[in-house]
Amino acid sequence: MASEPLALDIEKEPSGPLFLAIADAITRDIMRGRLKPGARLPGTRALARALGVHRNTVDAAYQELMTQGWLHAEPARGTFVAEDLPESMAEPVSVSVPREPATVRPHLAFSDGAPDPRLVPDKALARAFRRALLSPAFRGGADYGDARGTPVLRHALSSYLASDRGVVADPARLLITRGSQMALFLAARAAVKPGQAIAVEEPGYPLAWEAFRAAGASVRGIPVDAGGLSVAALEAAIESDPRIAAVYVTPHHQYPTTVTMGAARRLKLLDTVERHGITLIEDDYDHEYRFEGRPVLPLAARAPAGLPLIYVGSLSKLLSPGIRLGYAMAPEPLLTRMAAARAAIDRQGDAPLEAALADLIRDGDLGRHARKARRIYRARRDVLASALSAHLGGRIFFDRPAGGLALWLHCENVSADAWAERAGVAGLALLPGTHFALDRAAPQALRLGYAALDEGQIARAVDILARSLPD
Amino acid sequence: MASEPLALDIEKEPSGPLFLAIADAITRDIMRGRLKPGARLPGTRALARALGVHRNTVDAAYQELMTQGWLHAEPARGTFVAEDLPESMAEPVSVSVPREPATVRPHLAFSDGAPDPRLVPDKALARAFRRALLSPAFRGGADYGDARGTPVLRHALSSYLASDRGVVADPARLLITRGSQMALFLAARAAVKPGQAIAVEEPGYPLAWEAFRAAGASVRGIPVDAGGLSVAALEAAIESDPRIAAVYVTPHHQYPTTVTMGAARRLKLLDTVERHGITLIEDDYDHEYRFEGRPVLPLAARAPAGLPLIYVGSLSKLLSPGIRLGYAMAPEPLLTRMAAARAAIDRQGDAPLEAALADLIRDGDLGRHARKARRIYRARRDVLASALSAHLGGRIFFDRPAGGLALWLHCENVSADAWAERAGVAGLALLPGTHFALDRAAPQALRLGYAALDEGQIARAVDILARSLPD
Repeated sequence: MASEPLALDIEKEPSGPLFLAIADAITRDIMRGRLKPGARLPGTRALARALGVHRNTVDAAYQELMTQGWLHAEPARGTFVAEDLPESMAEPVSVSVPREPATVRPHLAFSDGAPDPRLVPDKALARAFRRALLSPAFRGGADYGDARGTPVLRHALSSYLASDRGVVADPARLLITRGSQMALFLAARAAVKPGQAIAVEEPGYPLAWEAFRAAGASVRGIPVDAGGLSVAALEAAIESDPRIAAVYVTPHHQYPTTVTMGAARRLKLLDTVERHGITLIEDDYDHEYRFEGRPVLPLAARAPAGLPLIYVGSLSKLLSPGIRLGYAMAPEPLLTRMAAARAAIDRQGDAPLEAALADLIRDGDLGRHARKARRIYRARRDVLASALSAHLGGRIFFDRPAGGLALWLHCENVSADAWAERAGVAGLALLPGTHFALDRAAPQALRLGYAALDEGQIARAVDILARSLPD
Repeated sequence: MASEPLALDIEKEPSGPLFLAIADAITRDIMRGRLKPGARLPGTRALARALGVHRNTVDAAYQELMTQGWLHAEPARGTFVAEDLPESMAEPVSVSVPREPATVRPHLAFSDGAPDPRLVPDKALARAFRRALLSPAFRGGADYGDARGTPVLRHALSSYLASDRGVVADPARLLITRGSQMALFLAARAAVKPGQAIAVEEPGYPLAWEAFRAAGASVRGIPVDAGGLSVAALEAAIESDPRIAAVYVTPHHQYPTTVTMGAARRLKLLDTVERHGITLIEDDYDHEYRFEGRPVLPLAARAPAGLPLIYVGSLSKLLSPGIRLGYAMAPEPLLTRMAAARAAIDRQGDAPLEAALADLIRDGDLGRHARKARRIYRARRDVLASALSAHLGGRIFFDRPAGGLALWLHCENVSADAWAERAGVAGLALLPGTHFALDRAAPQALRLGYAALDEGQIARAVDILARSLPD
């Protein structure tokens, strides 16, 4: 049972905390295969002596790796490399040592448009969560049981939507969910009978299609052009296919192309939906991230009263993908059906998280965070756009997105798949158009979700992008 | 816009904090209708002056009531009684002022078996949550995306189940869910095709039936006797109804009757399930709460390898209904199907909560809490059993439950519904047998979930119970 000696290759002058450099060295050894799943690590005392560091430093490194799932401890037996390594093993972006040693290839990823969790107002959130847990309301179990979510958050969200987006949302018509994914699933359950279809944008958001299919609906792609969903094509589809009972749109920043649906087309869409009596599902997933021009209000802010419109939003894009909080606004009886289905699959909301986020909204922390994040992401967008023009101008084209956390890169004369493959080998993960295709041919394009990369990472990523452009 | 003067009837010598006494007085005025929804409250300064207390005290009372959803603040306008009063309005158990003024009737409730959220190790939980939010793993977004849940919690849970229950659960076969409700929904989605049926205990757990129906399955009741689910009746049902594809059981403490399934019947159940090739869904919802005799290991601890058994558990019963964390263990490919459905309806788990609970398990806080809670609940059970015998002996009978958070009270010669109605008028909420009935006649019985009531509250509740016994 004696463990192997562990000769770690730790950076001599790590740019971050020493414990992270140790954690990073161990992670590298696991990735290289020098430390196998199940292998036992030396005790913290022994390793500290071997490395000439304080035992607490080694302990912090082990704790960090346990939190990340690389190691696990067995009481009275020791610390072992996890048998079941985290999914992120292939993408160790989480090891936050900014300078990589020469032996390890830089590993970067353009996401599908995730925010930067490093910006999360974590101290304010931790404080708010603590307040929520220690509050008499939580200890008294007061919020047990409303499938629509904690009243206090529905009230706070109602004010937020009214002041920020012109959406008048009666708290009684709001449903808090676990991220917008659940809101989309519940919307489809409430709006569509099994066997019916939902018209969706193509290219579009595959996770929404999964939610709709899980709810028993089929999905039918409607083409997207430079103005967003083609309402003429939608109209034709509805007339030819009586199964279409709803349409799903991302008018603010179309996913994945980032285009904004213009005012005239918005009115035409509302009119089409109303005439055909179908449900409109509006996903306003990153409303806060508008950098240019006047804010575009959601369809929900100007839809005629009585239109069956389900408005879906998320706080995950605003904070971190790890904060699971979405919401939906819908008229009765759609909301009642959604709440009933939510109770059946999830009983009730998450009282402490909901109370904590209500606090952040009420105290203004969320608004402050949104302003700060908007400033940072806007700068990152500009860095990305400049670097792309400088390195790839002429070979590719793109519109600098007016908002959102991603840029849509057209590359008509290049295979986006081949490009993504070559970039992957060079250490940069990319999402080509095939990722967003339903039935039609995939666009030769890449979605570059840049927000989680800092400016140095963006520069390196564009460098790899340029070097791996297929001939 | 001037607000009405507010003449509050505050207890002169409140037994709790003064701010809670003020909050309580305001709540009473709302409930009495003296303060209407939408009414404006005086400013904190004015009210503090009127009451002769410090302004912070009034502020704390308002904050408390906003957290509970009774009031809401509008920036620059003032504080108002919520238009949309919390569901708990009819049951202000959350207002934790122990001594009620004579004008207000004591309001108590026997639950369906919820734990006491006042016992939650909230400080340890707040600390663990803070650590999780501030950890590099969370800020790095490392845990994004595994639909089975955070690896570190699956590892911690695996050790916990092995040491505590003899259940050998490979972390790769564990799925973390939002409470056991979602685990039950996903179990039915994975095990049963739409149109097929799940055999369930009757009387039984209506929320499980809702989850199964939401997954497209019908439910078929199998009678329960003093030894739990009748396996002979199950066998007959399977033979007569080929739609039955799964059976749902609560063998440890049958819900709602609290009886434990004996060893011989357990073996017979496993044998029946195996011979007919149906899936076994075992809900071990309150394993930790065994007061008497040797611990009874779950079916999952002794099921033959390869049996399609889905084992479902929850940390909500151990901590608080407000902490939404359940889990399921299942063999491949059931687990893969469950994880895929979970991704479609909820994308991913709750990284901070999962990391925080992994911490509580690893540090031993969860085990310490379980031991403490077990001691307290056992004492409460004894107080309840003694009070029932003293006040109602001869009219009713019950077995002192060996475990669990509820007691099943038989009252064959009394209408349980009439009893519940009379007790309700006197201020005690009760759950009669009708609440747990599917197709068969409801048992004349009451489920007394006592765990959330302290000993004084139990005494008062039994007093009301005795006084409202129908003739």
